[in-house]
Amino acid sequence: MTDHDRLQIDQTPTPEQGDGDYVTSPEFLDRLDDILDQGDQPGLNALLEKLHGADIADIIEQLSPGRRRLFLELYGAEIDGEILSEIDESIREEVLELLPRHVLADAVREMDSDDVVDLVEDLDDTDRDEILSALDDSDQAAVRQSLAYPEYSAGRLMQSEVVTAPEHWTVGDAIDYMRREEWLPEQFYHIILVDPRRHPIGYVTLGRLLASRRDAVLRDMAEDSFRTISAYAEEADVAYIFNQYHLISAPVVDSDDRLVGVITIDDAMAVLDEEHEEDILRLAGVGDESSISDSVVQTVRQRVPWLATNIPTALAAAAVIALFEGAISQLVALAVLMPIVASMGGNAGTQTLTVAVRGLATRDLSSSNALRVVRREMTVGLINGLVFGAIMAVITFLWFQDAWLAAVIGMAMVINLMVAALAGILVPLALNKLGADPALASGTFVTMMTDVIGFMAFLGLASAVLL
Amino acid sequence: MTDHDRLQIDQTPTPEQGDGDYVTSPEFLDRLDDILDQGDQPGLNALLEKLHGADIADIIEQLSPGRRRLFLELYGAEIDGEILSEIDESIREEVLELLPRHVLADAVREMDSDDVVDLVEDLDDTDRDEILSALDDSDQAAVRQSLAYPEYSAGRLMQSEVVTAPEHWTVGDAIDYMRREEWLPEQFYHIILVDPRRHPIGYVTLGRLLASRRDAVLRDMAEDSFRTISAYAEEADVAYIFNQYHLISAPVVDSDDRLVGVITIDDAMAVLDEEHEEDILRLAGVGDESSISDSVVQTVRQRVPWLATNIPTALAAAAVIALFEGAISQLVALAVLMPIVASMGGNAGTQTLTVAVRGLATRDLSSSNALRVVRREMTVGLINGLVFGAIMAVITFLWFQDAWLAAVIGMAMVINLMVAALAGILVPLALNKLGADPALASGTFVTMMTDVIGFMAFLGLASAVLL
Repeated sequence: MTDHDRLQIDQTPTPEQGDGDYVTSPEFLDRLDDILDQGDQPGLNALLEKLHGADIADIIEQLSPGRRRLFLELYGAEIDGEILSEIDESIREEVLELLPRHVLADAVREMDSDDVVDLVEDLDDTDRDEILSALDDSDQAAVRQSLAYPEYSAGRLMQSEVVTAPEHWTVGDAIDYMRREEWLPEQFYHIILVDPRRHPIGYVTLGRLLASRRDAVLRDMAEDSFRTISAYAEEADVAYIFNQYHLISAPVVDSDDRLVGVITIDDAMAVLDEEHEEDILRLAGVGDESSISDSVVQTVRQRVPWLATNIPTALAAAAVIALFEGAISQLVALAVLMPIVASMGGNAGTQTLTVAVRGLATRDLSSSNALRVVRREMTVGLINGLVFGAIMAVITFLWFQDAWLAAVIGMAMVINLMVAALAGILVPLALNKLGADPALASGTFVTMMTDVIGFMAFLGLASAVLL
Repeated sequence: MTDHDRLQIDQTPTPEQGDGDYVTSPEFLDRLDDILDQGDQPGLNALLEKLHGADIADIIEQLSPGRRRLFLELYGAEIDGEILSEIDESIREEVLELLPRHVLADAVREMDSDDVVDLVEDLDDTDRDEILSALDDSDQAAVRQSLAYPEYSAGRLMQSEVVTAPEHWTVGDAIDYMRREEWLPEQFYHIILVDPRRHPIGYVTLGRLLASRRDAVLRDMAEDSFRTISAYAEEADVAYIFNQYHLISAPVVDSDDRLVGVITIDDAMAVLDEEHEEDILRLAGVGDESSISDSVVQTVRQRVPWLATNIPTALAAAAVIALFEGAISQLVALAVLMPIVASMGGNAGTQTLTVAVRGLATRDLSSSNALRVVRREMTVGLINGLVFGAIMAVITFLWFQDAWLAAVIGMAMVINLMVAALAGILVPLALNKLGADPALASGTFVTMMTDVIGFMAFLGLASAVLL
């Protein structure tokens, strides 16, 4: 790599590219602030003119509620379908209320049916009907059909605009048809072949179509890896299937196997992103709808329940310590060292737990290898216990000059790191078996186990051996 | 939703669909086990015949090392490019060594250049050269060009097979060209318009092309949202750009802005998935290459360093407790209650930390709103401190009948939950500012803060007030 090449890596994007990094640059934000302060509407329009709708939506999300109101007063008339479909759920209702009705109606008419579904699904019936009334009858019917499927289902995710063809058509028939039709979706990548009863029976990629002669028959160029998705499938499964099989789009069928829509990979990618967000937030004990733009009240409301579940857990550990008050008052070193045993166990448990939750999410952990993984974790727990038990025994001996105390903490570490491994793998497996989300409550269970067992092993052994 | 509809949700996929769930069903695995035990090669081929390469790769990953060797002895000759490109990094070298050379050569010849790059990039030069020698000269050159870009860059992710056209071509020219060419990529969704020096200047979607008359000029139907990616861009940024702007494919350019390849969304989705995996594993203090199929030795090697960093942290907390040995020996209730203060602080800190790390990853947390988020977290910390301080004060009073002790734990909780909030947001922001991965070391820092401050506040206040 030459020096000249290296320079390119740090190249800052130009405003013309409308790149996300530019949008959050201090200079940009200063200008935005000035413009909002001055109420300079033409200035605001000029500043945002070249930006992608997704970036404008991000700006709206990152403003404080007061500035956001000001922003929408100045820029409301410019909000289009692209921006609206990118606005985060957490502030969507707030934005919808501030938009002039005719702007909202125009924006909704521009959107694909799946984006309209996403926009209105959390609204109450009155607001929903008002927004949908902007659409013509057939578009409205398509949205309502989607809304009839369960929340978080493929039916909610799909768009109804699908390009289909009978399998006996030739390439020429298909091209002529597409040149004739006005309503084609903004983006599509396949033509789905359907039988007369609208059952999908294969698909042809547009690349293959373009590379074939006009008299070639569609049936003969259909892809062999054909895969349909039930409208009732959960969106997490849809994201998995797209990622696993590298799908670009997939037909969605109803309970009679009839084609009702199509899901494209960009929507599946967004779901994958949300699923990950849920996992990571749930593992940390944060409500899975948390967002950086939440208000103080929303944030407190999400976090209090999770902290509250930690109270009984912490009390259980405290109760174990209370059992050994006598031992502690005789040997205060026990109080000094006991959090170390608990904390090492908690960390080891979290490690195992996270690998297990992640393995379940990616389906790499299944009944076929569960037993082997449990055995591996137990062995790892034993080895780590021996390693860190020995380290802590040496430190303890150097600190307190007490060989028995050193032996006790070493043994307690071995026990607790094995318990941590066992709890870290069995708790998520059990929750998964019960149909619960393993990310949801595993953390509390596992740290309770490692705290309680950690304190009990250390203080119990100390009472038996030392006193 | 009718009862009939409901039934569809639980519908088990049929083997013909080759769905991932079927592959991990107990019946399937029992049959696989029997077949491997009997060394029944035709039986194995028949069992796997209808499966997607990605599912076969998953099966290979989930087998124990011994069974995997047996599996590859029986099935090695059937391994093709599709399976090979889906095999997880952690077992790739192992699988490559067990494959017959001619099978490997055939598989590599089938693969797109980006998949070959992915396959060979971690191999040493000899193994790499051996595998690349299977390719013809131009394919080999394409792979070597990609490998010249830094690891984790867009240049490594792109495929070199790109369909381009001059902007003055008509739809008819493009269709005739594609019908003539034999080498077209398996999947492509756009034609990239280039000038005579191979600078990309726009792109046309295949859908638009198909819907246009033969005499329409490509220049006039180019998309307005054109976005190129530098070959030196980091792959995490590539994933972000695809997700943010709903791209399906994007041209990659070298430092002279010349077209060198194209990245498609399925690869960007895989990167997004890996980035999330890294975040979640790093937050939990597990090496970011952890996988459920790792051996005991690999697992120990990944986890020991992270547990080792917890030793000084835990010792710091223990040293704080040691400062107050006198107080504890006078009032053992302090030893009983002190882990509660620390654990509530640790949980609150992890909550804030995770939201912050996540916000940085999705770029929802930036300099534009950092100050506001810090203020919010401080307020939330204060409110949570007051709520849980009050709860713990009541519990402590009921348990120990000591109003002063109750007051002390209440105050300590308020202090520690505010510290937790501050550390939880400032530590990841600081690491990010320094160019480090905020997920990587935040957890240890934050829990050290909450442990040390929690013990110090509680025991210090107790010494001052109670003794």
